[in-house]
Amino acid sequence: MRILLLLTLLSSSLLRHLVADSAPAPGNVGGAEYPRIDSNRSVTFRFKAPEAKMVRLRGGAGLVKDALDFYRGENGVWTLTTPPAVPGFHYYWFEVDGVIVNDSASYSYFGWGREGSGIEVPEAGEDFYTIREVPHGAVRSHWYPSKITGKWRRAYVYTPPDYDQSLTMRYPVLYLQHGAGENERGWVEQGRAGFILDNLIAAGRAVPMILVVDTGYAAFTNATASTNRSAATAAFPDVMLQELIPSIEANFRTKTGREHRAMAGLSMGSAQTLNVTLRNLDQFAWIGAMSGPPRQGFEVATAYEGVFRDATAFNQRVKLLWLGAGTAEQQIHANTLAMHEALDRAGIKNVFYSSPGTDHEWQTWRRSLDDFAPRLFRER
Amino acid sequence: MRILLLLTLLSSSLLRHLVADSAPAPGNVGGAEYPRIDSNRSVTFRFKAPEAKMVRLRGGAGLVKDALDFYRGENGVWTLTTPPAVPGFHYYWFEVDGVIVNDSASYSYFGWGREGSGIEVPEAGEDFYTIREVPHGAVRSHWYPSKITGKWRRAYVYTPPDYDQSLTMRYPVLYLQHGAGENERGWVEQGRAGFILDNLIAAGRAVPMILVVDTGYAAFTNATASTNRSAATAAFPDVMLQELIPSIEANFRTKTGREHRAMAGLSMGSAQTLNVTLRNLDQFAWIGAMSGPPRQGFEVATAYEGVFRDATAFNQRVKLLWLGAGTAEQQIHANTLAMHEALDRAGIKNVFYSSPGTDHEWQTWRRSLDDFAPRLFRER
Repeated sequence: MRILLLLTLLSSSLLRHLVADSAPAPGNVGGAEYPRIDSNRSVTFRFKAPEAKMVRLRGGAGLVKDALDFYRGENGVWTLTTPPAVPGFHYYWFEVDGVIVNDSASYSYFGWGREGSGIEVPEAGEDFYTIREVPHGAVRSHWYPSKITGKWRRAYVYTPPDYDQSLTMRYPVLYLQHGAGENERGWVEQGRAGFILDNLIAAGRAVPMILVVDTGYAAFTNATASTNRSAATAAFPDVMLQELIPSIEANFRTKTGREHRAMAGLSMGSAQTLNVTLRNLDQFAWIGAMSGPPRQGFEVATAYEGVFRDATAFNQRVKLLWLGAGTAEQQIHANTLAMHEALDRAGIKNVFYSSPGTDHEWQTWRRSLDDFAPRLFRER
Repeated sequence: MRILLLLTLLSSSLLRHLVADSAPAPGNVGGAEYPRIDSNRSVTFRFKAPEAKMVRLRGGAGLVKDALDFYRGENGVWTLTTPPAVPGFHYYWFEVDGVIVNDSASYSYFGWGREGSGIEVPEAGEDFYTIREVPHGAVRSHWYPSKITGKWRRAYVYTPPDYDQSLTMRYPVLYLQHGAGENERGWVEQGRAGFILDNLIAAGRAVPMILVVDTGYAAFTNATASTNRSAATAAFPDVMLQELIPSIEANFRTKTGREHRAMAGLSMGSAQTLNVTLRNLDQFAWIGAMSGPPRQGFEVATAYEGVFRDATAFNQRVKLLWLGAGTAEQQIHANTLAMHEALDRAGIKNVFYSSPGTDHEWQTWRRSLDDFAPRLFRER
């Protein structure tokens, strides 16, 4: 009994030594001690499962490649420490004998088509996406009825800090889309778009604007429970153009018309942005494609029904065509760069942004927004 | 092989027969087929865990008393059907060999101090808490810095449908608190307070008002990681009176002063409401205590520093003292009724509301809000 106690004390003091350099992840529920992040950005997870035979960690590429095995310790407590993680937000979950289990120490974030755990790994010296002592806009739920889908839909609308004071002011609007498996919460919760805009506006780096984030999933009313994945998003362009934009413009003090309307998105949302904007240039003058170049080989002459064929006309019409990707999402980065270079060769004005060291994850898209938003709604 | 196929077809047709009377729960993620609810309000859950030895369902009292065992079927798919459930929202989770697992078919709701699954069991003929074709208010995130806790805090603020149109109008404010283990999301997501107020205001049953829901957890900056549970809420009255209310009144078009300020809460939030309001009657004239009478024997003469001793003065000062509980939360219902009767005997005007058949769960509190809100901010 005394030996056991001694061993327990020893191992807990050993553990304390190992994590002396670490602190609980910011945002742990109720100040939970684990997960902890050390000064190398390695993350230590703990999970109690006395009956389990195998526990593994899975999640975003910047935290865990494929899967990592936990080690079983005393009392059925499993632990593991990751290699140094990429800064930013990472989805994660525990795989316990094949069952997906979320971490009770984490709030839930919607990604991978379900609620999952998430961890914020701070980036040294970087605070453009954190809440600071600057005037804050508000993120509002905006419910609107959709005849096209036969459902009520919820968008989130960010109104800038002066919206409730400058009561005659009207604002340009950025429509911003999430990626596959996510929803309208993504840009607010994982992306922290509201804080990014607060900070940009406070610094005078971005024009005060309204930001609208809706879900990119929209199926036509008559769609059957479908084996066809594309049915889940098929109605999105119609919903956006015929229902969302009119509802936003009827309920918020927006500037209207293409020169005051931008659209951007990440990954699946980038594809949706290019499809919607390049086929509706009468509606949009500012375009952002984050980590989502066209999948098939990009041909300037034929892409998007030939919209790039007349460079002079395109350059006159489109105020900004922005492309970006993270260097660690190598194939996407290469494809995006190839699109950028092909557009350059064709004389199509465009901006290419490269996020150093980040993968197909939210830190890439936070940085993308921080680069993209300041360019919007300004004279060139 | 053909026999296996036949058995599979047979069992799936049997299953279809068993659930012919049922429909997927409203709000299942991505239109998931399970959980399903039948016409008796029995709920059928499915969960795949080939390696598991025991799977149990736990959750809110109106869905599952204590725990129910799943039955193991083919391919490691476990199922169970509950007895008829009480209508309304129920937290639930799966216990898989002792590990708490959320249902990937459910969005997450914050309760029990963590993210959990939740199911909405419709109540026949009842739609006061559903989104309807009426003008909608907006729920806004409101971040405010708190020196008392040393943290940024997020409250949700519901502004009524005409808030952005009637730009000179000022509104009374209801501060509404969640229960233990929940947070500021509770009244919005589980409680659907925004839809309840939309519907009441559209029907002319409630005065347009601003609703503020904050978290009731607030620890003083110097509080140590504490074994003392009460430390987690100790700073709440100070935060509310010195930080939250001034921040709301500085940022929203509120009517100020006690006659335009109400406070209510459920369970732990009810205790917080009685503590804050009855000790600060100079600040509040409208009080609601939902499912949370004082724990110890209630004595009119001594309770809350004798505030009830002078009935005439109290009745003149307090415009509404509202008490309520569900009949299925028997002890709390009995204690609330006892408080009501004691107040009646002492000549203290008060309202007692009893929610038929509902337990210590959100359907009780939705109904409570639907009864309480229409009484607010009116002349008697």
